[in-house]
Amino acid sequence: MIKGLPLIFLSWFLFTHHASAQRSTYIIHMDKSSKPMAFPSCHHWYSSTLHSIKSINPTSSDGHYPPSRLIHTYDNAFHGFSVVLSKDELEALKESPGFISAYNDGPVTPDTTHTYKFLSLNTASGIWPASQYGKDVVIGVVDSGIWPESQSFRDEGMTEIPARWKGICQVGQDFNSSMCNKKIIGARFFNNGVLANNPDVTISMNSTRDTFGHGTHVASIAAGSAVENVSFFGYAPGTARGVAPRARLAIYKVLWDEGSYESDALAGIDQAVADGVDILSISLSYRTIDLYENPIAIAAFGAMEKGILVSVSAGNRGPNFATVLEGIPWAVIVASGTVDRWFAGDLMLGNGLTITGWTMFPARATVRNLPLYYNETLSACNSTELLAEAPSAIIICVQSFETAEFSDQISYVSQSNARAAIFISEESSILRSTDFPYPGVVINPEEAKPVIRYASNNSEATASISFQQTILGLDPRPAPTVAESSSRGPARSYPGILKPDIMAPGVLILAAYNPDASVASIGSNVGLSSDYNLESGTSMACPHISGIAALIKAVHPEWTPAAIRSAMMTTANPLDNTRKPIKDQARFFDNDVATPLDMGAGQVDPNRALDPGLIYDVTPQEYVNLICALNYTREQTQSIIRSRSHNCSNPSTDLNYPAFVALYDPTEERTTLTQRFQRTVTNVGTGAATYRVKVKKPKASVVTVSPETLVFQKKNEKQRFSLTIRYKTYEEYVINHGSITWVEEKGKHTVRSPIVVTPAEPSG
Amino acid sequence: MIKGLPLIFLSWFLFTHHASAQRSTYIIHMDKSSKPMAFPSCHHWYSSTLHSIKSINPTSSDGHYPPSRLIHTYDNAFHGFSVVLSKDELEALKESPGFISAYNDGPVTPDTTHTYKFLSLNTASGIWPASQYGKDVVIGVVDSGIWPESQSFRDEGMTEIPARWKGICQVGQDFNSSMCNKKIIGARFFNNGVLANNPDVTISMNSTRDTFGHGTHVASIAAGSAVENVSFFGYAPGTARGVAPRARLAIYKVLWDEGSYESDALAGIDQAVADGVDILSISLSYRTIDLYENPIAIAAFGAMEKGILVSVSAGNRGPNFATVLEGIPWAVIVASGTVDRWFAGDLMLGNGLTITGWTMFPARATVRNLPLYYNETLSACNSTELLAEAPSAIIICVQSFETAEFSDQISYVSQSNARAAIFISEESSILRSTDFPYPGVVINPEEAKPVIRYASNNSEATASISFQQTILGLDPRPAPTVAESSSRGPARSYPGILKPDIMAPGVLILAAYNPDASVASIGSNVGLSSDYNLESGTSMACPHISGIAALIKAVHPEWTPAAIRSAMMTTANPLDNTRKPIKDQARFFDNDVATPLDMGAGQVDPNRALDPGLIYDVTPQEYVNLICALNYTREQTQSIIRSRSHNCSNPSTDLNYPAFVALYDPTEERTTLTQRFQRTVTNVGTGAATYRVKVKKPKASVVTVSPETLVFQKKNEKQRFSLTIRYKTYEEYVINHGSITWVEEKGKHTVRSPIVVTPAEPSG
Repeated sequence: MIKGLPLIFLSWFLFTHHASAQRSTYIIHMDKSSKPMAFPSCHHWYSSTLHSIKSINPTSSDGHYPPSRLIHTYDNAFHGFSVVLSKDELEALKESPGFISAYNDGPVTPDTTHTYKFLSLNTASGIWPASQYGKDVVIGVVDSGIWPESQSFRDEGMTEIPARWKGICQVGQDFNSSMCNKKIIGARFFNNGVLANNPDVTISMNSTRDTFGHGTHVASIAAGSAVENVSFFGYAPGTARGVAPRARLAIYKVLWDEGSYESDALAGIDQAVADGVDILSISLSYRTIDLYENPIAIAAFGAMEKGILVSVSAGNRGPNFATVLEGIPWAVIVASGTVDRWFAGDLMLGNGLTITGWTMFPARATVRNLPLYYNETLSACNSTELLAEAPSAIIICVQSFETAEFSDQISYVSQSNARAAIFISEESSILRSTDFPYPGVVINPEEAKPVIRYASNNSEATASISFQQTILGLDPRPAPTVAESSSRGPARSYPGILKPDIMAPGVLILAAYNPDASVASIGSNVGLSSDYNLESGTSMACPHISGIAALIKAVHPEWTPAAIRSAMMTTANPLDNTRKPIKDQARFFDNDVATPLDMGAGQVDPNRALDPGLIYDVTPQEYVNLICALNYTREQTQSIIRSRSHNCSNPSTDLNYPAFVALYDPTEERTTLTQRFQRTVTNVGTGAATYRVKVKKPKASVVTVSPETLVFQKKNEKQRFSLTIRYKTYEEYVINHGSITWVEEKGKHTVRSPIVVTPAEPSG
Repeated sequence: MIKGLPLIFLSWFLFTHHASAQRSTYIIHMDKSSKPMAFPSCHHWYSSTLHSIKSINPTSSDGHYPPSRLIHTYDNAFHGFSVVLSKDELEALKESPGFISAYNDGPVTPDTTHTYKFLSLNTASGIWPASQYGKDVVIGVVDSGIWPESQSFRDEGMTEIPARWKGICQVGQDFNSSMCNKKIIGARFFNNGVLANNPDVTISMNSTRDTFGHGTHVASIAAGSAVENVSFFGYAPGTARGVAPRARLAIYKVLWDEGSYESDALAGIDQAVADGVDILSISLSYRTIDLYENPIAIAAFGAMEKGILVSVSAGNRGPNFATVLEGIPWAVIVASGTVDRWFAGDLMLGNGLTITGWTMFPARATVRNLPLYYNETLSACNSTELLAEAPSAIIICVQSFETAEFSDQISYVSQSNARAAIFISEESSILRSTDFPYPGVVINPEEAKPVIRYASNNSEATASISFQQTILGLDPRPAPTVAESSSRGPARSYPGILKPDIMAPGVLILAAYNPDASVASIGSNVGLSSDYNLESGTSMACPHISGIAALIKAVHPEWTPAAIRSAMMTTANPLDNTRKPIKDQARFFDNDVATPLDMGAGQVDPNRALDPGLIYDVTPQEYVNLICALNYTREQTQSIIRSRSHNCSNPSTDLNYPAFVALYDPTEERTTLTQRFQRTVTNVGTGAATYRVKVKKPKASVVTVSPETLVFQKKNEKQRFSLTIRYKTYEEYVINHGSITWVEEKGKHTVRSPIVVTPAEPSG
């Protein structure tokens, strides 16, 4: 079986462990305020610092190793540099003036279009026309680069690039400056970290060109131009279109075939901030580390200070508790949900019965009026020997835990003489494999009963299967549901602030891709490529939020990143398209409702987010107050805030967030706790307004809000309220949730915030 | 290997031989003028005749078989009926008044779009705008029915159906009357002959719906509406469009999964004449028989008398001499030529060399930078055992007569572990297989040398192959050439009249198809279907001529079928797109020029055919004069002319044809013969005109034309001339050819006719 991405991505991990044993790559944080005036730039200062820490090398002519070379210098999102150092050199560096902290460079991995319709974006009304489709907002995408020739990046009808833009179109392998246009306004690549960690490696595509497809996919979700008549081998046909089709893209390539490193990702983010992006879209995962050791969290802090909204994928480590590693309080952390679309094939029996199953066979296979054959032994479909007996017919394969996985069954059957197969699986409704190298459909055991009965009782049984069907709407399940793999809160970095923040579509999203990559297969030896690929993961959810943030930014350029995030969160929809609470795909059969730890405030609703009524704003100093309250050392705190001159006089974990998280420790005895939150909301409606609170309390708790009515005389006026929750704790992992909603009297606005009562830390 | 049509078509032959042993189906010709006045219709007369010939059946209650049931009654194209009879009954029938002749019903088989561009049809000027794209001309297609839902038969923008139209939309299985529209204005089906010949059979699709695709293909070539963005699995992409996109279609289904019979074909043609078609398009083959026993020839005679042009495919029995069976003097017999388009894949070696080969792998396979492997033993690629050793790489297969056919090699390789293959074949330029179930390219041995050298000398050799390329223009060969399989003249029925008449595109023609049929495959067990299929054969050439005839008819509604044929023939192009004489694909390596026996007058040129200057017209009586000269019995003659009252006072084989055929007998001693032809040309230019003859004499001959100048005072004036050829004969099969061209003085018209000196009969 030829598989696409998994193999490629695996190589990053392999490379990671090739890093030089003697010397390592470090990311060094420096206090810029300590820079002696004598140095014209930080770069000079850092270089001089490195020169001063030459370490002993008895074999060299001057008795020292040559001075370490800077990999990257960081000046915008945060201050410092990356460098390859020995342990001795690192120790020497720690004694240098201005040194704040150092940590090892680590590997970075990516998480992985009808969605604009599913999100009710339309040309007639709402946020698309209001924002002129995100006109002139610049979205920086830090990923695997871009395939510039994709139709999704055509710039027909786009206006000139704004003069404020400082980015460039960096020339490299198979990438010249003419490959940028009015849509792709910046392209840069960063691989000094790869080279430093793997000195012998040769970069196979030394430019911003995307050899994976991941970066191309993500960029086109956020801001792709409209392209008609695209599909994934006939599935999901239609017009591909980004969420903000008139926004600009600035591409920062930091993921490489040869490995991917935090030092390079940090360099990309740093440069994006310098270039002047408005939104940063980061669909990457990194190590489980505290905020002060998380370079992306630190860079995001700098970006936030400059008014840049940072959208980060939650990760694909779900569905277990506390799997969100990217718990950055000053970013938007995005969970992934399903879409109201699935891909089907009709199984038509000779007796007239038709059953719609799942298929993604990537071609228009001819399976018409073929014999239908069922044999219980053969139906295990778990070995080449067994299937050597398969007739030239449609055979039936039954999946069971004892026999074989679907992926094994389909591989065995593809090598047999059978012409097509019906796969019977308990998991038919969640086994949504896009790797479908043989003509067949997946149906569930209940649906299969009449099929087996017909095939068993009729030696002349026949069937047909049709392919390449795309079904929109409710069947077979409501949408969205939280994707099983989407990482769940609470955040390990700091559980008291709700993460993920919000959910966006991230399952089987059609978007542009590297047209040379193998994205489907037929049989065991034929790989197929496509200009548009269906991919799943929070990687695909994140750029939806980036695009929506760009739309909001186009209408409200003065809003802070926190204001834009608040607008999206307080207008998010906790209900699915059947108007019932959104379910969790992982616990679908238990009919379990998703909690805010699964999906944040709910499914993003871009048209409502444009006009939220009230916002919960956060100033950079308020984030500092939070950091100051986290019991970090002074150096750890400085790592994030990047200056010794920060103000820690008001430490507080009670951030002005549009969500309320009440924590308890399940290892302690059951008790009742009280937590009080203080919030300030700003009236961003058109003028005077009165809001009355509506509380939906979590189970086993009492919630009081004071005052219960907020009266605003004018626009931009602020009002404070407090929320007190008295809640029972458990000696097990129980999550209860509710919400408060400020409902405008005689107005249209409702401003909803989730409340969660949750254990703070994962068990074990 | 799954193959599409061949298997289906084979079944017709199988069914043919199931015919009842005791009784047979006969087609009976009757003299309508003998009908007693007492019978209100021929049908009553024929029924009464059958009732009178009850034969003895000792086992039945009344001692007789029940009277034979009429299968079809024919009243338009010719007079008579078809019926199942015992030998005794037939003998009794022969004694009935009005009986002319009877013969056994026989099987019918079908012969198998950028072409409108290749034919220089364009919207700016010429025959398309002049004819309003064939507006309101009705083309009757006698074939396997139609797939009415195909986009090619949409009727957007078409005007109301002319009141003169008498056809119907016959309701049948999966076919209701709403499936006709302003494009498909008639649909009827005829299978009484199938049922009579196979009494136990059940018709699986008892309606005009096309279960093959052949009829749909042919109909859309003749008159399909424009459909954008179609292709055959990515090959030949573009807009499909019929030759006469505004002509109407009337569909007569006579080909069946259960068998196909002349009696049904005749019924279809007969009905088409009654319904009022203007053009008949018949892409069918039938038995080798004389004109008086060829029901299609006979029906075509009746159609011709009513002013209907009949276009018939020459057959696919080439390239041997005298393989045209359909030598109907009063029809247009169409040869098949290649098009200036081929389908390619680029083979790119790791050393930078790129070779363009032939491929039609029906998907976008990913063959990128894979190892390239050459091993002489493995390169035979002729067994599963041998290829069990194949690495996961691109392997090289060398075709040779001792090893395996290409189709076997590709089948073996597809079951191996190899990822793609390079097929080296002497026949690379003619091995244009559309059955390409595995990723690879075909190149020739000369092109292969550097590939084998690179693979042999470099253990790290790599290559890539790209697919789905369509190349237009000259390379690798000029176009058109006469398709190897196209049947060649002279006609066995009567060799003195040039057949085929003309050539049209018939190789790898893209047109609409039955979307359920398997038309391509991947590996050994996956069949694929497509809305548009690439097919080859004179079946595809014939509807090009039908469409062009419709365009001419739209401009010149008063022209006889012979006039339209003359216009196409005298303006046909004997040169290819390199301005050299058209070559014969079968003898391409000998650089042999095609003769008029291969391609008639040459490649049809529709824009010139609109305005030929002079025409060679033929009246029905002149065809009678020809028939009277063919030494037929009175009954045989009557079979064609369908009346005892015909006038045989002027028998003559010197038909007023726009071609000159001088015959000799190679079994006789070498000598010199003289043949004199008399011709009358009609001035269809705008007024007075003078033409001067230009002779290109055949080798070993002297040609004199008298007079050498023709002066016309006005339009529609006729002038006579004679052509005398004095030519050497051979004691072997030598064909010499030349032409005469009437060149208008101070005008644009040139009126060319081929001259051929040929043996009359095939050897053996």
